[in-house]
Amino acid sequence: MERPFRFEVHHEDASSAARWATFHTPRGPVEMPAFMPVGTLGTVKGVTLDHLRQTGSQMVLSNTYHLALRPGEDVVADLGGLHPMMGWDGPMLTDSGGFQIFSLAAMTKITEEQATFRSHIDGSLVTLSPERAVAIQEKLGSDVAMVLDQVVALPNEPAVVREAMERSLRWAQRCQQAARRTDQALFGIVQGGLDATLRVDCAERLASLDFAGYAIGGLSVGEEPREMYRIVEATTPVLPRDRPRYLMGVGRPVDLLEAIARGVDLFDCVMPTRNGRNALAFTDRGPIRVRNQVYQRDRRPLEADCPCPACRHSLGYLRHLFMAKEMLGPILLSIHNVTYYQRLLARARKAICEDRFAQFVSERQASWSKGNACEG
Amino acid sequence: MERPFRFEVHHEDASSAARWATFHTPRGPVEMPAFMPVGTLGTVKGVTLDHLRQTGSQMVLSNTYHLALRPGEDVVADLGGLHPMMGWDGPMLTDSGGFQIFSLAAMTKITEEQATFRSHIDGSLVTLSPERAVAIQEKLGSDVAMVLDQVVALPNEPAVVREAMERSLRWAQRCQQAARRTDQALFGIVQGGLDATLRVDCAERLASLDFAGYAIGGLSVGEEPREMYRIVEATTPVLPRDRPRYLMGVGRPVDLLEAIARGVDLFDCVMPTRNGRNALAFTDRGPIRVRNQVYQRDRRPLEADCPCPACRHSLGYLRHLFMAKEMLGPILLSIHNVTYYQRLLARARKAICEDRFAQFVSERQASWSKGNACEG
Repeated sequence: MERPFRFEVHHEDASSAARWATFHTPRGPVEMPAFMPVGTLGTVKGVTLDHLRQTGSQMVLSNTYHLALRPGEDVVADLGGLHPMMGWDGPMLTDSGGFQIFSLAAMTKITEEQATFRSHIDGSLVTLSPERAVAIQEKLGSDVAMVLDQVVALPNEPAVVREAMERSLRWAQRCQQAARRTDQALFGIVQGGLDATLRVDCAERLASLDFAGYAIGGLSVGEEPREMYRIVEATTPVLPRDRPRYLMGVGRPVDLLEAIARGVDLFDCVMPTRNGRNALAFTDRGPIRVRNQVYQRDRRPLEADCPCPACRHSLGYLRHLFMAKEMLGPILLSIHNVTYYQRLLARARKAICEDRFAQFVSERQASWSKGNACEG
Repeated sequence: MERPFRFEVHHEDASSAARWATFHTPRGPVEMPAFMPVGTLGTVKGVTLDHLRQTGSQMVLSNTYHLALRPGEDVVADLGGLHPMMGWDGPMLTDSGGFQIFSLAAMTKITEEQATFRSHIDGSLVTLSPERAVAIQEKLGSDVAMVLDQVVALPNEPAVVREAMERSLRWAQRCQQAARRTDQALFGIVQGGLDATLRVDCAERLASLDFAGYAIGGLSVGEEPREMYRIVEATTPVLPRDRPRYLMGVGRPVDLLEAIARGVDLFDCVMPTRNGRNALAFTDRGPIRVRNQVYQRDRRPLEADCPCPACRHSLGYLRHLFMAKEMLGPILLSIHNVTYYQRLLARARKAICEDRFAQFVSERQASWSKGNACEG
């Protein structure tokens, strides 16, 4: 019998550590490098299913923490699980809640046994152990589940960072032992802050546990991009070449390309949708602030060659929608931005295939900087 | 040469005054009785163009008052006109602003020459004369323009109602004389409050002016439904049979059917979209309050036979979206409600065609009441 999850590397770029691969899941393939739009509460904000498919997204992410609080994993299960509930029949990944406990929850207390915290919705007391994080994700029915990890603020005391990394490793093992579903892959998460030695140590020990995939977590929490790139660069060589590598919560278009060049295969980020809701559009000439007065009578679309529904309209119309606070503005720009990310990654895969990924990164960076200079 | 606008009555119902007709416009036909979703500011709130088309809508309405204030008719013209700006290539009707001067503007002063008022956006002083209402609509480039009318609160002093009706008639003539575009039809508007005699008088004098279509205005401003039906019933027989009849700003599904039975062909209303945004869904078993706790684990769609994107999901999911304040809730319910209206009118046209419209109205009313009793 074929394994339900299989990672197939098609080509490794000659000019960088980038690779073109396919991650096969029971719900279909994911071409990598891949970007997952974030469907926090079982919906990518403002985007209907048909539009989501049109963006070219193959895999989406949902948040365990948010869904466990609202509507609760039992309700999701009663509605048939996350896939039937959302109507998304493609691959889906759920995070474990580790990051949200760090970023959203209040009065968090971490013991060896579990995390205890107050819900950011109603202040109620919630506990999350590695076993419970796995049980919730099994109820949600995602295709890829993440281990529960402990995320710490950066910079931080070396001892604090090390302790969180060690605990994350122990929790990863407990998650692995708790996992029951054979149709759900479990990914480990590398922690270790901005200390490359710690990261390498964590990655090696995690790799020996034989996860279906490996994430780099605890980054994109305010550190300089070059610090993030340095940690990614130190970590990826230690991770198994035959498993997908996932950089969690990243990032800007440039961050994706820099990480791909260092061997990362998978990303998720709220940036395209959150920025879209705030009238910032990603384009090949850099980000565009759609509310800018200069676009008032601009008949051109955001990007002439973009097939998304926003680009069937003029910039002037998009600006009008935002100035008039019409819902359609956030809707259209969210769709455009996710489409932009997917089109960027499609081009990235092609560049890898043609052994010119390093050149592709330089070209994109030049194009983004040039456009930004123009908008002023 | 064929006239650019042509109204073709296919069949008159044997059981009521309802008629099945086609209104031919330069941008395509409109099957009547027809419902126009309201795109106040050049967008049906929360609905993308492809979804709007999927609802079965053939004609949409935009508001002259709103567009003149924001982004301004000159900006719309610079963006190619309302059709290219919205991307809607089907028939479009613009109102004249008369109703919004009554309902939205502040410190309104009406003279014989024009209306002067303060913008509800920024308080700036705006004037609107019959000539300017036509000029704005010609710049917007809608297919059907409306004359500027004077709407009064109801109930009101007979002298006030009569004066507004007489002025509306004079303004209608001025609009007719000001109109220049041959590719834009101009509809007259019957006023006269709740006084059937005044309405008949107004309708007769308006009919002699030979408009391309006739609207009944100034209703749905808080009066009892039966009062509205009484006025419609008194007015339609006086209006030319070979022109479309449009009941402005109406209404609930039952109001549409009652008005169709009295000879009305065309409607517009914000109800499907506004109620959709507020979690109220129209169905054959009456309106459904989607936030109701009873739907938390309900796996059924709103309507099993509805082809809209909302009905590909469970009621439980729709409820979750509203409880979590996700944009997708208002988006999906707006699409569903417009779809419901269009499906209802498609069935109405079929019933007219089969001479059983009166029976159809009874059946629908029974079904709506029964469902409401169930929800409790």
